[in-house]
Amino acid sequence: MQKGSFTLPGEAGYEKLTLELAEKWGADVIRDSDGTKLSDEITSAGYGIYSTICIIREHNEWAKKNPDKLQQTFLCTQPVVASKDEVKIELLADFFDEQFGINDTERAMKYWQVYDRTTDEVVPANNWNYDKNTKSVTVKGITPWHKYTVSFLAYRIWEEISMYNHTTNNWDKEHLMQIDPIYPETKEYLRNWMENWCKEHPTTTVVRFTSMFYNFVWIWGSSLQNRHLYSDWASYDFTVSDLALDLFAEKYGYSMTAEDFINKGKLHVTHVPADSKKRDWMDFVNKNVVDFGRELVDLVHSYGKKAYVFYDDSWVGVEPYKKEFENFGLDGIIKCVFSGFEVRLCAGVKAETHELRLHPYLFPVGLGGLPTFSEGGDPKKDAAQYWVNVRRALLRAKIDRIGLGGYLHLVEDFPDFVDYIEKISDEFRTLKGLHESGKPYSINTRIAVLHYWGSLRSWTLSGHFHETYMHDLIHVNEALSGLPAEVSFISFEDVKNNALDNYDVVINAGAMGSAWSGGDIWNNAEIVAKLTEWVYNGGTFIGVNEPSATTEGGNVFKLAHLLGVDEDTIDKVCHGKWAFTEEKAEAAKLMPENAYVKPRAKCRLTDGKATVLAADGDNPLFTRYNFGAGKSYYLSSFTTCPENNRMLLNILLACEKQGTGMYITDNLHTECAFYPETKTLVVINNSGEEQKTSVNTMAGVKEFVLAPYDAQIVCL
Amino acid sequence: MQKGSFTLPGEAGYEKLTLELAEKWGADVIRDSDGTKLSDEITSAGYGIYSTICIIREHNEWAKKNPDKLQQTFLCTQPVVASKDEVKIELLADFFDEQFGINDTERAMKYWQVYDRTTDEVVPANNWNYDKNTKSVTVKGITPWHKYTVSFLAYRIWEEISMYNHTTNNWDKEHLMQIDPIYPETKEYLRNWMENWCKEHPTTTVVRFTSMFYNFVWIWGSSLQNRHLYSDWASYDFTVSDLALDLFAEKYGYSMTAEDFINKGKLHVTHVPADSKKRDWMDFVNKNVVDFGRELVDLVHSYGKKAYVFYDDSWVGVEPYKKEFENFGLDGIIKCVFSGFEVRLCAGVKAETHELRLHPYLFPVGLGGLPTFSEGGDPKKDAAQYWVNVRRALLRAKIDRIGLGGYLHLVEDFPDFVDYIEKISDEFRTLKGLHESGKPYSINTRIAVLHYWGSLRSWTLSGHFHETYMHDLIHVNEALSGLPAEVSFISFEDVKNNALDNYDVVINAGAMGSAWSGGDIWNNAEIVAKLTEWVYNGGTFIGVNEPSATTEGGNVFKLAHLLGVDEDTIDKVCHGKWAFTEEKAEAAKLMPENAYVKPRAKCRLTDGKATVLAADGDNPLFTRYNFGAGKSYYLSSFTTCPENNRMLLNILLACEKQGTGMYITDNLHTECAFYPETKTLVVINNSGEEQKTSVNTMAGVKEFVLAPYDAQIVCL
Repeated sequence: MQKGSFTLPGEAGYEKLTLELAEKWGADVIRDSDGTKLSDEITSAGYGIYSTICIIREHNEWAKKNPDKLQQTFLCTQPVVASKDEVKIELLADFFDEQFGINDTERAMKYWQVYDRTTDEVVPANNWNYDKNTKSVTVKGITPWHKYTVSFLAYRIWEEISMYNHTTNNWDKEHLMQIDPIYPETKEYLRNWMENWCKEHPTTTVVRFTSMFYNFVWIWGSSLQNRHLYSDWASYDFTVSDLALDLFAEKYGYSMTAEDFINKGKLHVTHVPADSKKRDWMDFVNKNVVDFGRELVDLVHSYGKKAYVFYDDSWVGVEPYKKEFENFGLDGIIKCVFSGFEVRLCAGVKAETHELRLHPYLFPVGLGGLPTFSEGGDPKKDAAQYWVNVRRALLRAKIDRIGLGGYLHLVEDFPDFVDYIEKISDEFRTLKGLHESGKPYSINTRIAVLHYWGSLRSWTLSGHFHETYMHDLIHVNEALSGLPAEVSFISFEDVKNNALDNYDVVINAGAMGSAWSGGDIWNNAEIVAKLTEWVYNGGTFIGVNEPSATTEGGNVFKLAHLLGVDEDTIDKVCHGKWAFTEEKAEAAKLMPENAYVKPRAKCRLTDGKATVLAADGDNPLFTRYNFGAGKSYYLSSFTTCPENNRMLLNILLACEKQGTGMYITDNLHTECAFYPETKTLVVINNSGEEQKTSVNTMAGVKEFVLAPYDAQIVCL
Repeated sequence: MQKGSFTLPGEAGYEKLTLELAEKWGADVIRDSDGTKLSDEITSAGYGIYSTICIIREHNEWAKKNPDKLQQTFLCTQPVVASKDEVKIELLADFFDEQFGINDTERAMKYWQVYDRTTDEVVPANNWNYDKNTKSVTVKGITPWHKYTVSFLAYRIWEEISMYNHTTNNWDKEHLMQIDPIYPETKEYLRNWMENWCKEHPTTTVVRFTSMFYNFVWIWGSSLQNRHLYSDWASYDFTVSDLALDLFAEKYGYSMTAEDFINKGKLHVTHVPADSKKRDWMDFVNKNVVDFGRELVDLVHSYGKKAYVFYDDSWVGVEPYKKEFENFGLDGIIKCVFSGFEVRLCAGVKAETHELRLHPYLFPVGLGGLPTFSEGGDPKKDAAQYWVNVRRALLRAKIDRIGLGGYLHLVEDFPDFVDYIEKISDEFRTLKGLHESGKPYSINTRIAVLHYWGSLRSWTLSGHFHETYMHDLIHVNEALSGLPAEVSFISFEDVKNNALDNYDVVINAGAMGSAWSGGDIWNNAEIVAKLTEWVYNGGTFIGVNEPSATTEGGNVFKLAHLLGVDEDTIDKVCHGKWAFTEEKAEAAKLMPENAYVKPRAKCRLTDGKATVLAADGDNPLFTRYNFGAGKSYYLSSFTTCPENNRMLLNILLACEKQGTGMYITDNLHTECAFYPETKTLVVINNSGEEQKTSVNTMAGVKEFVLAPYDAQIVCL
């Protein structure tokens, strides 16, 4: 078996273990981790060496001298009701005071805003006054019984990941601070620092940036009753500063206000469509991040090292699915993965090297707080579960490398884990090899997932599965990540530009008003007409939860005429409902045993002609509706699991034109991929039990018996 | 025991039975019913005589000669997608063709409209053409892939109640038609008819109008799969005609269009706030109904007879809670009742005589299709169940008369029913007598139910309980109908006019966008500020389901600052939730055993300070929040039942200032009323089991043991 494509976390003091496991797992690269170092014995052993750097923290000395170069954010106080014509508002009362410090400099205060939140009107600046001593704003001449807020700029005085580890894992180190490269002085400092770092690390072959400059939004509250006031993995609130706002106004010809970020206290969550100002701001920040990132990457290259970016935490502004990403000049991208969609997210980025950081990390305790490499933990079992999620996506898309992170010595007590990693790293290298000669076979159904963000948010919503489980789309994406079909992510702009011509199936899945459903963009008649024509001519539209939903017009679902179902609202409470009976025969073909559709929206048939495949009383949950030469399916919700993933596959197969019926397992606990160039068939068992399955192939029907979680590879 | 106040349905051919039961039940009046006549023997027996007339139907001879005087409605076709630049739409394809005939006269067609329903824009009249032969409209020069509708005027060629009885009860009579008194010719005909009728019915003492002129909206479809396309008991669509539209335009200076009724195909359901045009139209119709109704009542009076109106079916435009109602000059109002709220609805109308028509009707089969006075029926049990609903409201408000309707001979096989009616008619007369010396004792908590319609829709929503059970407010109203507290219904206009000063508790209960919650009117800062000030100064706000909810602004609930809870939306999916623990001790005081709050909206605490009394996981279902000197309660839903009615009473008691704790039973299956003027206490058992209870009174604690469904009356 070929070795390589594996990154091992080394650990000084455990040189023997490091080199033994490097051999066993087939590592070609050894890395350090947050909290570990590599010794000379390791770095001189002939392996490639990754070094992790978090470029914006770990400069506390400089940060202390330059407190006005710390990163910032807008904050908005909770509304306070005025019981007379004057009200006093304490700015930091609601917030964790170890995370934030008020930026009350003159250049920042011009961006502060006081709002009447009963009318959502701004209060003129001469009606309020800030008192530095009490850190409070007094608002005068106001309307009694209205409620008021203050939006202000705050420095973030404790880097959030440091803060999290500190408070969660009881770390007792100095609070790290994060410096903002928007300032020329910070850039100058970081250029010098990077240059020195390269000089001081001659054995490093790859610099791994963790990640670039700006953390996802994570606002902590003053009360333990609600510590995490706001967390959004893909928003840009933590990129703001008075200087950035000034520069933006210069470049775009208009000013962003505090309210453009605060948005009535709601902020602009990634799960909701952005407005044009937010999109401008994202472009502005991305340009800055790419420009300065490129400088650092060039510097790294000038020392003969490669530069990879770790796609996590401080990734904001990096945007690997934006065309500007290529301008970084990065050599690789690394993604930590729990799920299949994260594999596809990584694989789809335009970069030379795609690497996965597998879970579990070599830490005593996992992210959820349960033991991993400590008493009561079963890291092999954890690894197997994540591997099942990951592997089915690895069948579909090529990944170049895998690896681990953490404290290597922790594995010593878990020899079954050590053996399991050997097994799956071999499995990984085999799968990688199969992709090298060409793409796997796909069914004849080209899928577009349609949402507000389009390709910018390919595969992901915002963060990990466990952070976004409440959205149907992450379940759809996870299911699709391992299905034998070509998947693209398109936006409504793409629809306007005739993107539908390239697809056989369009999926729109999400709650009304969400970015995933699309929000008010569905009031655009051109988009509705394009989809109508496309279905009429043979396309298949799959709508989940509240597809094409807006509150305007006669229907909630703007594609109700294609779906044959619409959502109930109070407006329709006096309208009769079309009776229906479930079509058990067709349902049985699409829904394997134990497949299910949970009720989400409350719907009704539009004209009684939809075929109802599943229902909850008089609420249709799963329907088909024919329109012209095409059709639509409606699903009240979608939850990923082996049975429901197969249901989705069955729907896609039912949309196939001239399908072959080949290379599909007949046991839903197994999946397969066929690589035509090498005539190789891979069959995997996703379950913890032995499974039998057969697959119709070019060489006839093949039978397989697979051990729990096993994979088999045959040449036809 | 005093007799009287009872209206008996007599039946020719059963003279002996009629007169025997009149004696037994204490009748002072004998009536005819739909399908029965009274003989001379009955009418000359010394009783008052009611005669029922349905003034707008049963004129088929005249109607056939004047088909252009039939009543009308706007109809709108289902949207049809255009697959090219032309589309043909059949007007009656969706509708029951025995109910509707197209009005394609020139004066009607000027009100027709063709709409592009993808853009909701009207299509110019010269782009479409109506073909009388195919009864279809062809629309040309349109945008392919948009969808189109035609809104048109249709005659209603079969009176809806006749149609219902015909199709439901397999009647085989001539289809009755309804004529429209908007036309001078119809008025003239009806005046003459009424005059003749009075002459021909000298023994009649009371003319019972059933009801006035316009039926509630009831649009039937062409498919048995969805026969009742639309039914709204309180909307005005069936009052429209080309002449009415012309007269309206003359009077109001602007024209109502088809779209003002059709509203994107949704129509304007009573459960949603109206717009100003609908309110103008309602006023316009009401004025016409009152004016011509007054003419008929004057005519009846001129023959020495009284005129009562039966408040059902063709009641539209009568509006007993509008101040104009008094202009009718009616002597009484009769309401059929299943529920307590209907008793209060009747009792609150400004009229001399308030009469209840009890259920069950003396028909073989009940409204729900189950047997009543036929094999398998148990009419005594039915009567007892309705009486329990009705009686608790009779304790609170004075009703003058009760009675029955239907075929008297059917009771012959049900002697237990006959005895039971004797018992409850005596019970009724006793309760009526208690009211005559003054109002019953109320707790010190004046309640206002706040919704869009205010006093116009006092007690009722739209129709019966079983038609409106999905709305929280009907459950609240039903609970309140028998609770010992003063209840008013106020509108948002009333709030602006300082109505809050008169109340201690305001209840707002309903789904977002409904008339019962209030809809967009909650975006009005003045209303929010008034309620804020009022709670701060000591008021109690009770919000149910989605109180004060709109989609605008930072909070869904515009009174979130008073409630301490707000509804979750997609905007808040990244906001942390305040943790809470349920306050079991306070909950136990308010929620008796088996009381419950079903989860409806998904909510969160606003600032962690609300006291959570019940929850479903992290979803608070029942909370209290203090604000200034006042407080608010939030209930995710409200369902009427003895336990929950008591929970509501407990909340009201907790809002009492200087409450006495007197005249409240300590067993929730019993209730009581105290009449201070006569020092009389009535205790009722609402359950089918014996109940013990005690009541704290001016004469000390009194103990009671009550037989199933029984009532006891004591003088203190």
